[in-house]
Amino acid sequence: MKPTSGLSRKILLKMNPPSEEDSRSSQTRILDALRTAGVSASFSAAALRQLYPLCDNAGWRVTASLGWNGTIWEILMLEAGDTEKSHYGLAVDLGSTSVYMRLLNCSTGETIEEVSEYNRQIAFGEDILTRIFYAKDNPEHLDEIRKATIRTLTELMSALRKKTGIAPSEYLSMVVSGNMTMIHFLIGLDPFCIFQTPYAVRSDAPGFLRGSDLDLPITGYVYCIPGRANYLGGDITSGILATGIYKEENISLFFDVGTNGELAVGNSSFLLCGAGAAGPALEGGVVHTGMRAAPGAVESVSLAGGEFHLKTIGGEAPAGICGSGIVDLLSELFLNGWINLQGVLQPEKSSLISIRKNPDTGMEEAAVCYAPGLYFYQNDIREFISTKAAAATMIEYMLQASGIRLEDIDRFYMAGAFGAHIHKESAIDIGMYPDVERDRICPVGNTSLEGASMLLLNRALLTDIDRILDLMSYVQFGAVDNFVEMMQAASALPHTDGRRYPSVMKKLQDRAARSETQSAVPCADSRD
Amino acid sequence: MKPTSGLSRKILLKMNPPSEEDSRSSQTRILDALRTAGVSASFSAAALRQLYPLCDNAGWRVTASLGWNGTIWEILMLEAGDTEKSHYGLAVDLGSTSVYMRLLNCSTGETIEEVSEYNRQIAFGEDILTRIFYAKDNPEHLDEIRKATIRTLTELMSALRKKTGIAPSEYLSMVVSGNMTMIHFLIGLDPFCIFQTPYAVRSDAPGFLRGSDLDLPITGYVYCIPGRANYLGGDITSGILATGIYKEENISLFFDVGTNGELAVGNSSFLLCGAGAAGPALEGGVVHTGMRAAPGAVESVSLAGGEFHLKTIGGEAPAGICGSGIVDLLSELFLNGWINLQGVLQPEKSSLISIRKNPDTGMEEAAVCYAPGLYFYQNDIREFISTKAAAATMIEYMLQASGIRLEDIDRFYMAGAFGAHIHKESAIDIGMYPDVERDRICPVGNTSLEGASMLLLNRALLTDIDRILDLMSYVQFGAVDNFVEMMQAASALPHTDGRRYPSVMKKLQDRAARSETQSAVPCADSRD
Repeated sequence: MKPTSGLSRKILLKMNPPSEEDSRSSQTRILDALRTAGVSASFSAAALRQLYPLCDNAGWRVTASLGWNGTIWEILMLEAGDTEKSHYGLAVDLGSTSVYMRLLNCSTGETIEEVSEYNRQIAFGEDILTRIFYAKDNPEHLDEIRKATIRTLTELMSALRKKTGIAPSEYLSMVVSGNMTMIHFLIGLDPFCIFQTPYAVRSDAPGFLRGSDLDLPITGYVYCIPGRANYLGGDITSGILATGIYKEENISLFFDVGTNGELAVGNSSFLLCGAGAAGPALEGGVVHTGMRAAPGAVESVSLAGGEFHLKTIGGEAPAGICGSGIVDLLSELFLNGWINLQGVLQPEKSSLISIRKNPDTGMEEAAVCYAPGLYFYQNDIREFISTKAAAATMIEYMLQASGIRLEDIDRFYMAGAFGAHIHKESAIDIGMYPDVERDRICPVGNTSLEGASMLLLNRALLTDIDRILDLMSYVQFGAVDNFVEMMQAASALPHTDGRRYPSVMKKLQDRAARSETQSAVPCADSRD
Repeated sequence: MKPTSGLSRKILLKMNPPSEEDSRSSQTRILDALRTAGVSASFSAAALRQLYPLCDNAGWRVTASLGWNGTIWEILMLEAGDTEKSHYGLAVDLGSTSVYMRLLNCSTGETIEEVSEYNRQIAFGEDILTRIFYAKDNPEHLDEIRKATIRTLTELMSALRKKTGIAPSEYLSMVVSGNMTMIHFLIGLDPFCIFQTPYAVRSDAPGFLRGSDLDLPITGYVYCIPGRANYLGGDITSGILATGIYKEENISLFFDVGTNGELAVGNSSFLLCGAGAAGPALEGGVVHTGMRAAPGAVESVSLAGGEFHLKTIGGEAPAGICGSGIVDLLSELFLNGWINLQGVLQPEKSSLISIRKNPDTGMEEAAVCYAPGLYFYQNDIREFISTKAAAATMIEYMLQASGIRLEDIDRFYMAGAFGAHIHKESAIDIGMYPDVERDRICPVGNTSLEGASMLLLNRALLTDIDRILDLMSYVQFGAVDNFVEMMQAASALPHTDGRRYPSVMKKLQDRAARSETQSAVPCADSRD
């Protein structure tokens, strides 16, 4: 990353003042100085208006801020003196639930600050479909959601300003990564098309738009990372960019697991991509005591000696359970035989399992008490298993469709907040991740935000994005005949076909052997 | 002029609606259809927002309006159905006194309507320097003048709308031709630099700016024709473009005579240009009974039998005298000997000449009564002669500086409202125009507006403008030693060197001969 390679530039220009011998206009003087620095540019009206008295007052030592508008460099503003180092840009992961905004120093490439916030669209529906129906063919409603989106972004900017003292007017460029629906809402386009046959979206590559055209207070342009198809939005493009799988000869798998799951398998020659509703279960959504990864959330679970050993975020008293905790819990329940292959709780295995009324379903159900007053219900298990089955089936289906075998895949990139925090071992135990060497599974965090940041700092990646879009082919899940059977097979723990999970099978055998030994010991003890 | 060659385009796109087989995005569908039509373009945020439901409602028969932004085509708006023929643009001559706006049908090249208005900047000073001093280093005052400029333009647009029913939002492009000061005020730049050494202006080539960035209600871009130097603004570039003198092998002279005089001599290899204050005398400004060319203005004068024979605009009773009337009047006074070579009134020649108090100067002066109650004072003559001397000296100096002789010049293009209405013969009589074959003198009207119109309809002329700017070299009048002597020589009628005006000399000789004959007749009669 060089400070000259991003979507914006700041260039200190040292010019001679006008004289009898050199009476070029201020405009020409600046354009000539830029040309000497190797940059040809055009002036924005705002920057033209700054020509006087700024240049004179600054003794013709002026820093020009340039923004890439998709075609040429545009001089966005002028500042007196050398402000080259005060060079800022924004990367945004516009998620349907959470929005992450990163302020970068574009001259060093460093992250200055990062903030996140719930998407204010939630006021129009927790669930994305509710929002879409609210806006459908109703321009006023659509604009309400657009404004909520913009307000989320401007509030994040205010938070950044509070933390760093850097005002939005100093942000020269902004890259937004989001799925198709989010980008439609950001622009103010009805996203119903995304969910309706023939799934032709309105805009999949908005390109560079002026911040002011989107009602954003930044000085420069906003680039929305383009997407490939209705369910393959800019967030997956960004993730593929961030992991670099499109540049490798080896085949990789990229899986961004959040409210939706987006999957890509490929290398520098092909990228098979699919997406599906992984379900809010992964974010703790449909689980009765589920919660987002926040203080008090159980994030890690082990079961030993008939008791749960928990770790909570912030070390606080358990208040609920987040994604990584749920995966651990299921793994432990399964490995200890408290649930069977189908995930059915086995009350005879522990007094911690009882029959209770599930407030969510209103039904009497088996439930395991994993912490004082906190129960994980049979229904929660069912929901989560269907989610993990969906995730695993996406991978399996993709491999089947492509003829690629697990062993052909060099790296498994697990993205998203969930992918970053989940314990690989537990995810394999329950058959959510495939059973491969653990170091082939790489948690990569928020690749949507990461890709946006990389692009902000390196406009050459625009070419890479074109390449990624070219390589991507969309595989529609569920459109194949045997998808339902595949789902059913993947709904077992870890899978109906145990041969796919040799390491899990071995664990179970080891435990069984240990448990026989152990049960032999008490027997021996009972002899006392 | 082809409907596809201007600064804007309208293209009807007939597309297939999205289907299972073809689920391209609306955006891609339109960009692909444009590419098929040979145009690559980018989307504006406004046009993106129009994608739905417009395309669906129009059955995918959509007209895209494109504006050239200086680098690429930008899709400015979409309309349902075929609106190719409703294709409009504006050409503007932004003069310091009057502003002319022409609405063109860009699909046929025809002028639909033309309106003009006094420049509202006049509220800040009749005289341009007063305005400049008002705005100098005072951003609030500068913005007042900027807003007055914008208001002038928006009022003209309202007038056009009233006359044609075509709203400003339908104008896809606008070309403005004006001098440096006018363009500085339009953008909101302090123009004091134009009049202050070293005469380095702020912006001489603002290029393409969004209408909205200038607070103009048009949909597309505004292009300001660039200028070459402080006194050589876009109006002269536009004039040179309109006359085409930069393309000819033969040498031409272009003279735009208004409040300022702008002069160019050259051909396809060189363009010597100069400008100077021709003075408001040409627009009737400093003459006591002077007026603009409006009903009641004396526009033509002849003197026969000791009496004035007048023609007024609209045939109304004389209310004052405009430029062409003044030139006629001076010519007749001179040819009839009522003024001498120095322009001094000869009271003994007519009872119409008397001594009166000039209300302008407060002095007792000789004055000629050219219409009932309307007097042309000695001071008026002096002012006008200094103006005509300035004009003639500009030409003479330019020829001297370049070594070009009058006979080397093929065509004399006389531009401006003044140039269009003045009687060549009279202008030669008083030595304002050079004494050449009359058909070599071509009145060409408002070339500033004409050049702007041509460019609006033909963006290839942008290259011609670059060529013109390259060819132009600035000759500063008054910077030479003998300028004052040249001015003095040109302050005689027609000139101290009568050999320069052989046809005028011949007229005088003929008249003298006739007058001798005539005076001989009365003598003969008196014998009766």
